[in-house]
Amino acid sequence: MSDENKMRNAMQAYIDEFNAQNLTNLVDLYADDATVEDPVGSPVKSGHKEIEAFYDMGLKTGAKLSLVAPIRASHGNAAAMAFNVELNMPEGRSIIQVIDVMTFNDAGKFTSMKAYWGPGDMQPAD
Amino acid sequence: MSDENKMRNAMQAYIDEFNAQNLTNLVDLYADDATVEDPVGSPVKSGHKEIEAFYDMGLKTGAKLSLVAPIRASHGNAAAMAFNVELNMPEGRSIIQVIDVMTFNDAGKFTSMKAYWGPGDMQPAD
Repeated sequence: MSDENKMRNAMQAYIDEFNAQNLTNLVDLYADDATVEDPVGSPVKSGHKEIEAFYDMGLKTGAKLSLVAPIRASHGNAAAMAFNVELNMPEGRSIIQVIDVMTFNDAGKFTSMKAYWGPGDMQPAD
Repeated sequence: MSDENKMRNAMQAYIDEFNAQNLTNLVDLYADDATVEDPVGSPVKSGHKEIEAFYDMGLKTGAKLSLVAPIRASHGNAAAMAFNVELNMPEGRSIIQVIDVMTFNDAGKFTSMKAYWGPGDMQPAD
């Protein structure tokens, strides 16, 4: 149960650090050799350096994340959460509907992140 | 875009066939050699025979599934959805908060399903 809560807390920290635009804390949630596939089907980023570059770009969009349902844990070393990303696009304010799945190491760091969203999950905010 | 919608339709069919308690149609959404890990961290069921036995038991609980957010697709052969399962437990009516991730083959059948929910995701319904 403590592991389950540790995973939920790390997922919530991801949302909070992203929204606080704290790049260092955000990248520190990941293990050194972690991978990020966002969106699923795009090239995988691997290791802190590539992950930091990815989030540096992401944070500069001013995107904000908001959970749309409680974070789900599992009976293993993985958890998942559904959220919306609100951001300014050239076409106006947009929402991307996302589900992230993270796997964890024993230290509670993310070893992988996969973000499920397709072209049709990006929509005008209003 | 058509693939994206094909995946969303198959995910919605999963919800609908489960709620209609149509075991044959539910299992037919899966490829012959598909795997089911529900919850993630439990033994994997493999192939139609094991998958059918799993859902036969699941449907007998009278569980009903309801989406809590729009189904997410991806830029690859995978999609994800957040939903609640409402069912009768010995302790009373309960809700399990779940996120399912499915991968797909070219025929649009599920090749794998992973259900993310932990002990703490099961709660009294009221």
